[in-house]
Amino acid sequence: MQPIDQASPEQLRQQLSLLNQQFQQLQQQHLDLDLTRGKPSPAQLDLSQDLDGILKGNYRDSSGTDLRNYGGLDGIAEAKALFSTLAGVQDTEILIGGNSSLTLMYFCAQTALDRGLGENHKPWRQGQLPVKFLAPVPGYDRHFSLCQHLGIELIPVAMNDAGPDMDQVETLLRADSSIKGIWCVPRFSNPSGIVYSDDVVQRVAKLGKIAGENFLVFWDNAYAVHSLDKGAPQLANIMNYCRAEGTEDSVLLFGSTSKITLAGAGVAFVAGSPSNLTELKRHLAFMSIGPDKINQLRHVKFLRDASTIEAHMQKHAAIMKPRFDAVLQALNTSLGNHGLGEWTEPRGGYFVSFDSRPGLAREIVKLAAQLGVKLTPAGATFPGGNDPRDCNIRLAPSYPSVEEINKAMEVFVTCVKLASVRQQLNAG
Amino acid sequence: MQPIDQASPEQLRQQLSLLNQQFQQLQQQHLDLDLTRGKPSPAQLDLSQDLDGILKGNYRDSSGTDLRNYGGLDGIAEAKALFSTLAGVQDTEILIGGNSSLTLMYFCAQTALDRGLGENHKPWRQGQLPVKFLAPVPGYDRHFSLCQHLGIELIPVAMNDAGPDMDQVETLLRADSSIKGIWCVPRFSNPSGIVYSDDVVQRVAKLGKIAGENFLVFWDNAYAVHSLDKGAPQLANIMNYCRAEGTEDSVLLFGSTSKITLAGAGVAFVAGSPSNLTELKRHLAFMSIGPDKINQLRHVKFLRDASTIEAHMQKHAAIMKPRFDAVLQALNTSLGNHGLGEWTEPRGGYFVSFDSRPGLAREIVKLAAQLGVKLTPAGATFPGGNDPRDCNIRLAPSYPSVEEINKAMEVFVTCVKLASVRQQLNAG
Repeated sequence: MQPIDQASPEQLRQQLSLLNQQFQQLQQQHLDLDLTRGKPSPAQLDLSQDLDGILKGNYRDSSGTDLRNYGGLDGIAEAKALFSTLAGVQDTEILIGGNSSLTLMYFCAQTALDRGLGENHKPWRQGQLPVKFLAPVPGYDRHFSLCQHLGIELIPVAMNDAGPDMDQVETLLRADSSIKGIWCVPRFSNPSGIVYSDDVVQRVAKLGKIAGENFLVFWDNAYAVHSLDKGAPQLANIMNYCRAEGTEDSVLLFGSTSKITLAGAGVAFVAGSPSNLTELKRHLAFMSIGPDKINQLRHVKFLRDASTIEAHMQKHAAIMKPRFDAVLQALNTSLGNHGLGEWTEPRGGYFVSFDSRPGLAREIVKLAAQLGVKLTPAGATFPGGNDPRDCNIRLAPSYPSVEEINKAMEVFVTCVKLASVRQQLNAG
Repeated sequence: MQPIDQASPEQLRQQLSLLNQQFQQLQQQHLDLDLTRGKPSPAQLDLSQDLDGILKGNYRDSSGTDLRNYGGLDGIAEAKALFSTLAGVQDTEILIGGNSSLTLMYFCAQTALDRGLGENHKPWRQGQLPVKFLAPVPGYDRHFSLCQHLGIELIPVAMNDAGPDMDQVETLLRADSSIKGIWCVPRFSNPSGIVYSDDVVQRVAKLGKIAGENFLVFWDNAYAVHSLDKGAPQLANIMNYCRAEGTEDSVLLFGSTSKITLAGAGVAFVAGSPSNLTELKRHLAFMSIGPDKINQLRHVKFLRDASTIEAHMQKHAAIMKPRFDAVLQALNTSLGNHGLGEWTEPRGGYFVSFDSRPGLAREIVKLAAQLGVKLTPAGATFPGGNDPRDCNIRLAPSYPSVEEINKAMEVFVTCVKLASVRQQLNAG
């Protein structure tokens, strides 16, 4: 197929006719495929088959505490040791929770908003309203909806290949002290898959000095160990940079095993300065008897140490890599160098981010749905579902099989082409 | 020992001298015993040994859904079926959560306070402030601290042998529409162990008609199946009474398996009208990816049905009964008919409630501590830790062994006598 902006109207009409035929043929296949959400596949979940039953009647931690009983608001020592390594913090800088990092994020945002984090951190709600957060876009819809539920306004900032546009971030923070937070998915970002550069991480660690009082970086390192190949870029340790800057109180780090062990039955954690954690625990005590320590113990026995985790994640990569390859091969083969869109080629994470020609994302998602392929709703990667250029589509290839992805991508590229050719014809 | 209000000063001095000797002898034993909290004993936790490993690689529910993955905000169908029976509601009237009913209670109170439960239920915070709750006393300290954390004022109301003093409750509700809730532990109440009578349950079900708008009964049925013997009084079904009154929206029921299976790793639930649950779920969706469905499945496979639960609870009773007997025997033998206090003789639950002569609870707890026996702090069973008569002490015999309880109770009755005789002498 010829680059469509170089095609004559006649050539475009020929292409359109061909694409309409392909569309109809695909429609007759009555497909039912789903590329919407970042869910691990059953094969990935099978990798953690040994979790249930791993305790073999031994419910004690290394200090002899019976973990079946009440107590231990911030998790068991062994889990702190293991996951603090994963998070790159001290084991005094972590709280191990239940099965959901989202729940911890909500709790932290709500606590900072309504309660404050200690004497020097007044509740955001007591300052200038509305409270605002920076939202690097495209980003994660649940981060955005969490803020919207709490009445926190989101200001989109651009992402580039090295992370958020830090010039823009710093300018915004200097201009508006009611901006109290920023969302970051620093490694294999959702959805673009990029990894924050060392320079960006260092600049994020300095934001606490630039921003108004009580600024918090929500550092959601959901894909910390989720690389597709050994050469994937590493992420700099933000807490170390914070220590150098004296900004430890300005960052909360989140993570979980949802995409290491079981998506719905893993272990989540929040890491931060001891002073932040003390305040969080003080409030948590009113609403929790402590997390499920037995499931924490299962995870410690199963994941053991950093090298066991690494080996385990290589098994995930072996399952994920062919799926990403299928997506990228379809995009490169069918759309490469045609001016029909741009996309990322992530080295890890769960998503490929696709940008169509402006104004086509909604149309492409709609067309794909007509062919039985569910895509993440266009706009979902922007606050309020509002992608101003209507071009970003998140592709999530983890759950379907490679064959299903091949078929879904055949649909996807057909829809991209069809929408693009139609647009070009209308513009002509 | 003679009833002390009939003893002469000389007799009292003789008793005091004897008690001081006993106190010193006990002090030389350097005891370290704990009757503070309602924690299951290791023997009770062992009853649920089969939970871990029970799945044997089968992670699907009856509809074939893979429970390891994300989704299912309100729990799995099988858990709804099982625990709705326990709660006495329809399976459309229950939400199965994580490991903590306290977390669900906090979430419900906060949602009603800040968000409201639907169009007809405006957020309590938008009405007259402060929002108030009725607190039958003596009661459960975590209920009180939850309210205090949310800025909800607590109004104590008296408990009698059949439940809260409903005349007092109704009078208060008619007089003050800013009272938006009441705490109830309706079966084997914490700490008195009484069971609400049918009449009280029926009157509680009617409170929604008497109270101001959007009143909610927090029905914490923590000890629903925790009887010590087969003849223990049953609890009437409040939701059935609510249906008859049209007040289904006025009650939220809570429960968990914390004291059925594992205290820290059980399954908790909230039950209520479909309209209340819809609103709760709408808000929960912003802060949760769904509960740990795998642990729910474990519990369903382990607890199976009402008769399996009943048989399981009889094993608990066999462990608990001798402990309660030890407490009651010590009280009856050493303090019976001496005017030194009153106590309940619960047929289930986790506590014995002791009332000393007025003004002595703090002193007794202090004296016991000097002998190495930790008791629940005096006042803990009252809002703000303030027992106006300074007489209530909660005894929690579940965790220690019978031998330890015998020794702890020897200390306790000695301290009760010592404090009482001293008081009588000072009064004389």
